[in-house]
Amino acid sequence: MHRIRVANRHYRRSSMERTIGIGLLGAGTVGGTLVRRLIGESDAIAKKTGLLFDVRRIGVRDLGRSRAFEITEGLLTDDPFAVVSDPTVDIVVEVMGGLDPAGDLVLAALDAGKPVISANKELISARGPELIAAAERAGVPFLFEAAVGGGIPIIRPLSETLAGETVTRVLGIVNGTTNYILTKMADEGSTYAAALEEAKELGYAEPDPTADVSGADAAAKAAILASLAFGTWVGFEDVHYEGIEAIAVEDMVFAADFGYTIKLIAVCDRTGSGVSARVHPAMVPVEHPLASIRGPMNAVFIEGPAIGSLLFAGPGAGGDPTATAVLGDVIDAAREMLAGAQVAPRIMMSPGEIVPFEDVRTEWYMHLMVDDQPGVLATIASGFGQAGVSIRSVWQEGVDSQAALIVVTHAALESSQRAALASLEQIPEVLEVAAIIRVLGDES
Amino acid sequence: MHRIRVANRHYRRSSMERTIGIGLLGAGTVGGTLVRRLIGESDAIAKKTGLLFDVRRIGVRDLGRSRAFEITEGLLTDDPFAVVSDPTVDIVVEVMGGLDPAGDLVLAALDAGKPVISANKELISARGPELIAAAERAGVPFLFEAAVGGGIPIIRPLSETLAGETVTRVLGIVNGTTNYILTKMADEGSTYAAALEEAKELGYAEPDPTADVSGADAAAKAAILASLAFGTWVGFEDVHYEGIEAIAVEDMVFAADFGYTIKLIAVCDRTGSGVSARVHPAMVPVEHPLASIRGPMNAVFIEGPAIGSLLFAGPGAGGDPTATAVLGDVIDAAREMLAGAQVAPRIMMSPGEIVPFEDVRTEWYMHLMVDDQPGVLATIASGFGQAGVSIRSVWQEGVDSQAALIVVTHAALESSQRAALASLEQIPEVLEVAAIIRVLGDES
Repeated sequence: MHRIRVANRHYRRSSMERTIGIGLLGAGTVGGTLVRRLIGESDAIAKKTGLLFDVRRIGVRDLGRSRAFEITEGLLTDDPFAVVSDPTVDIVVEVMGGLDPAGDLVLAALDAGKPVISANKELISARGPELIAAAERAGVPFLFEAAVGGGIPIIRPLSETLAGETVTRVLGIVNGTTNYILTKMADEGSTYAAALEEAKELGYAEPDPTADVSGADAAAKAAILASLAFGTWVGFEDVHYEGIEAIAVEDMVFAADFGYTIKLIAVCDRTGSGVSARVHPAMVPVEHPLASIRGPMNAVFIEGPAIGSLLFAGPGAGGDPTATAVLGDVIDAAREMLAGAQVAPRIMMSPGEIVPFEDVRTEWYMHLMVDDQPGVLATIASGFGQAGVSIRSVWQEGVDSQAALIVVTHAALESSQRAALASLEQIPEVLEVAAIIRVLGDES
Repeated sequence: MHRIRVANRHYRRSSMERTIGIGLLGAGTVGGTLVRRLIGESDAIAKKTGLLFDVRRIGVRDLGRSRAFEITEGLLTDDPFAVVSDPTVDIVVEVMGGLDPAGDLVLAALDAGKPVISANKELISARGPELIAAAERAGVPFLFEAAVGGGIPIIRPLSETLAGETVTRVLGIVNGTTNYILTKMADEGSTYAAALEEAKELGYAEPDPTADVSGADAAAKAAILASLAFGTWVGFEDVHYEGIEAIAVEDMVFAADFGYTIKLIAVCDRTGSGVSARVHPAMVPVEHPLASIRGPMNAVFIEGPAIGSLLFAGPGAGGDPTATAVLGDVIDAAREMLAGAQVAPRIMMSPGEIVPFEDVRTEWYMHLMVDDQPGVLATIASGFGQAGVSIRSVWQEGVDSQAALIVVTHAALESSQRAALASLEQIPEVLEVAAIIRVLGDES
């Protein structure tokens, strides 16, 4: 049996010289958990990593609020810039969220030559290039493992382990709230409203769930995933996103009948004409690994010519998993800081075309209510054909005057699909377009 | 739309100064693929990472063998030490495998202050502490992402992203050959021999498959996973391992009937009394994420108090995926090298107790052939009870003189399970112990 202590002169000298001072911006769920763990688990962390951390300053909005952690008096401040400029703070951890003042704080910290760890997907997807450039100017790490997929290690594998791979596609279930709601609807036949209500009660959804259910949260994460996977910056504004508010239980049942399950999917593609990222509900084949990601879990599925496919799955949110990801970045940054290196960037961003959503090829599932007259299907198919969309399969339920017609198309340009949809307006027998859901296929 | 080139003065200066020279030890499946990619994809790699690589020297056993890559004459040598000592070689990549001379070559390279990338699980699980110590003395990276799980990023997430997590358990399907064979047996009712033959024909099994089917290959990987997860060195000789040679189709069927599937599982546990690692066939509940890992795929499942559980799945072997992992390490090492840092270690190894396999708690599935006399079950249960093993469930097929009796026990010390097994020898009605397979439960 080995009982070997691997000696490390370098580290030992450094750690004896000084403890690493942490400045925290934000002390909510993630920040509070982080403080508790940096204090309560400092021995375990030191044993495993050889690093000693000390929380030196915590910026909060409301000094009077009760906290789930105990700290020395005077550590809290409601001036976040005091955290950044505190000379005893070596590393700044930004877990306050939002664009303002988080962006200016991160920039100020980087400009002061302090490594920054951020869990703020909104900020990174909006101002990533600027912040990354600031980190490079200063030669310090800017790390954000926790910004996507909560506790799932995904940023590091994408930008480091797969740095030599020409990643072609990244698919993700990157929002736990919507995945919880959709799982509930699929499994128990709950309506969207009922499932959302339950998600709120369980704390999986915010009182105002808009950012989650609209797809905006997932879109910010998709932008970050696409940027790292393809090495071409994709910003939040480049990501087309749609939410899950209109998903009906009926379509969940149709999906299951056809061998699919409905998920809110982030799709990042690299094609011959450029890169694209989008978020929308999609019919996912039940045999696809993402179909089995249930409840609040997240997962990212990566494809490349050499690697084939990789799946990463785990808890996408929550104080504890997210704090673990932040802590991993803090340890990494401390390690590089103590090594005294001018840090080269983990990934380069190169110019590249971003394919607008209209030019992305998608497959559509359409749920129509039709007046079942002879020839109506031929009329629909003709309009679709003129729009450049060919129909893959058709299924009709009911032969009354009100029949449900399910049309699944082959892949076509999103703009063509929309033209096909518009053509339905000219057909009086089409009473209603009850649902449109894209199908996850090999569209590119 | 952003089309931002993130400037990086630091890197640009370095890369203009020089290209990074790669010395390769071994040019088999992985090495050959790596050479092809370093040459054929150098533009793509430079665009994404800003790094230029040049293969300067390749050590091979047989200079006359035909190669799947074209290189400048004179690059090949049958003196591997010439690769290590070549002054134009900045980074050494060891993909030759085996203990000798790989170990001495890696040591020589590290002692010469050259970063080393290795895919050699056998070497690392045998001489890890010595090699890691040499890397620390030299202040250079020693990276081995490809040693476990082929193309799945697992070493980096375990040792970096999860550095702040007290990982409690790591489960892995880390050998593609055996997983292919077991999947074939479960799905198609193939015998072990027939499935092995097919695995050989498809190139999933070596002509001599002993290292794979015996569990030895998985044991080396389990040792590495346990060491990184727990921060306590676990060597190959600390891992109890058993292979799949004795698995019968009949037990595959019983497993399925009871809601399990049989997999060769690496189990690494941290308990109050220490850490342990073992590899053996196990009944895995069908709802467990590892149950759905099929064919030659690999997967690693990590549990911790903060993180909950994480799943990583992907191609566990093959030239292309493994070369991607090696390439990721090469890029990482080059980055650190250019930063001019004395590199602090990614993980510290601390002293810790290794729990011997006899003291690990396991659950057993036992398939007995019994002479179905009244009272035989009571006799069996009594012997088990005396050994400290309690029976969870019993199932009997057939009421002839030759009945199959399936006994599943509660968790008990492995030594107690063996005592219970020995007690069967005293019972004349127990005609045969047809199979013993451990059940994957929460044994700790």
